[in-house]
Amino acid sequence: MGVALALAERGRGRTAPNPNVGCVIVREGRVVGRGWTQTGGRPHAEAMALAEAGANARGAIAYVTLEPCAHRSPRGPACSDLLSEAGVARVVAALEDPDARTAGEGFARLEAAGIAVTRGIRTAEARRSMAGFLTRQALGRPHVTLKLATSLDGCIAMADGSSRWITGSQARAHAHLERSRHEAILVGRGTYEADAPRLDVRLPGLEERGPMRVLLSSTVQDVPGWTVIATPQDITALPRVDHILVEGGEAVASAFLAADLVDRLLLYRAPILIGGGKTALGDIGLTDLTAAHRRWAIVDARQLGMDRREVYERERNEG
Amino acid sequence: MGVALALAERGRGRTAPNPNVGCVIVREGRVVGRGWTQTGGRPHAEAMALAEAGANARGAIAYVTLEPCAHRSPRGPACSDLLSEAGVARVVAALEDPDARTAGEGFARLEAAGIAVTRGIRTAEARRSMAGFLTRQALGRPHVTLKLATSLDGCIAMADGSSRWITGSQARAHAHLERSRHEAILVGRGTYEADAPRLDVRLPGLEERGPMRVLLSSTVQDVPGWTVIATPQDITALPRVDHILVEGGEAVASAFLAADLVDRLLLYRAPILIGGGKTALGDIGLTDLTAAHRRWAIVDARQLGMDRREVYERERNEG
Repeated sequence: MGVALALAERGRGRTAPNPNVGCVIVREGRVVGRGWTQTGGRPHAEAMALAEAGANARGAIAYVTLEPCAHRSPRGPACSDLLSEAGVARVVAALEDPDARTAGEGFARLEAAGIAVTRGIRTAEARRSMAGFLTRQALGRPHVTLKLATSLDGCIAMADGSSRWITGSQARAHAHLERSRHEAILVGRGTYEADAPRLDVRLPGLEERGPMRVLLSSTVQDVPGWTVIATPQDITALPRVDHILVEGGEAVASAFLAADLVDRLLLYRAPILIGGGKTALGDIGLTDLTAAHRRWAIVDARQLGMDRREVYERERNEG
Repeated sequence: MGVALALAERGRGRTAPNPNVGCVIVREGRVVGRGWTQTGGRPHAEAMALAEAGANARGAIAYVTLEPCAHRSPRGPACSDLLSEAGVARVVAALEDPDARTAGEGFARLEAAGIAVTRGIRTAEARRSMAGFLTRQALGRPHVTLKLATSLDGCIAMADGSSRWITGSQARAHAHLERSRHEAILVGRGTYEADAPRLDVRLPGLEERGPMRVLLSSTVQDVPGWTVIATPQDITALPRVDHILVEGGEAVASAFLAADLVDRLLLYRAPILIGGGKTALGDIGLTDLTAAHRRWAIVDARQLGMDRREVYERERNEG
């Protein structure tokens, strides 16, 4: 399942509206097929892995990060049917598919065909891996990551606006990798005017993975090459966007937090003090310190050169 | 030496103007004496350890965090003489004493008495352990720690001033332990007016270790129970203070940083977002982002409940 989860990451940010699934087919302890959802959502991971496995799929175990789909469509047959036609002996899945067209029906169809099904393996990691698809299914909007790059004292720039550079080259390269994992990147007017030409993915081999560029502004309208929306809630209607990266500045970050539309905080923190600089956030509607607690849980932390990267997720189970 | 360093910590914040030294005497692989500089600076660590060892000191090894002193004073004999009189075979020391009355003379006297001397063992830890004494010797002022307790977005309070609580109970208990390791604690007028009764050490067994309370204010003069100074530089003249903890607020923290009088940053960081709150720092005189880099090196980090504690030290070797 670890390999299937790693394969699933390859499609992240490119498969909307389909989930980025990973699949590994193992026969007699040997990997005979590997697959991941392709750009645009097809072929599915299982179809790709089965194609690679060929006759070796017979009697094998298929590890898949999401319940195989049960819906036949003009774009391809149902994966649960493909797996039973290929003669796999067992399917191990991390998560049930919340999509109403599958939602248990994929597992049922496999079991009806005499295939053993094991569910719930490494569920938490699979949820994180397919956060975009799952957020779209549950909340009807993309999964939102807010990126902040700050000094130790929480500044995102000096008072005069200078912000090159707060973090070092490793942290900045990592931030570009994060861009490649999102279908869209969103900024406000200030950041657009200061940084528009730079909002791409500048990593060797990933140049083509530049996300859709979205500008949040209630005053600007048509900007060539950009999608303009007037409120944070308008992200709901962005086509083929299941992951959106909010990059700044302060007003945009605060508006998304005030609307409780941030699922994941991505912090890059440099070991410097600025003092009296531009702050990361303005008013986010907090009225009481008690209410600030238990909203964010740290899920990852690592050192990138001199800087520290931390990832927090919004706790949504407290209510 | 690790045990000697641990013993040295017992005196930290209570031995000024003497260094907080630790000493362990080992004979045939067994600890026969342990000592640390006592409150007020006497007896010295070596005298205490030798008293415990008694006749067992003959032929033993003495591990000591600082070069044994060479100066006889009305308050006690020189430790280098005590060690040779006791007949120790070897002295292992972490650091040479920068005090002009010793400065190599302690080692010379031991060697002249036929005692083997090993120097430079765990020097960096010993420097950190005796930072107060060493800063006083090198710079003529106390070692300054600036404490900041912030949210992820760098706020020390909400816009209305509320700051109870940003960090959790474990971080707050740890901050009280830090107070007990400093001879003085310094705040500005705003913090004094909001928190004066609370600026003590509230840990079982350490209640008596409340530090001298210092108020930085150019307008206030006499405050019973407090020492009032007008500028950060006035810390130089505080009697018997080798470690000072600067606790806030923003103006005081910024004044110390602007004067480059902070040696150690003690950060407690809670996993919360406040947004538009009171910032940790105002202007600290930074004119260029490049100059902000390479000033602070992280030396310790740990989790305290939900919060993270980080310690940074000022890099003073770049110039």
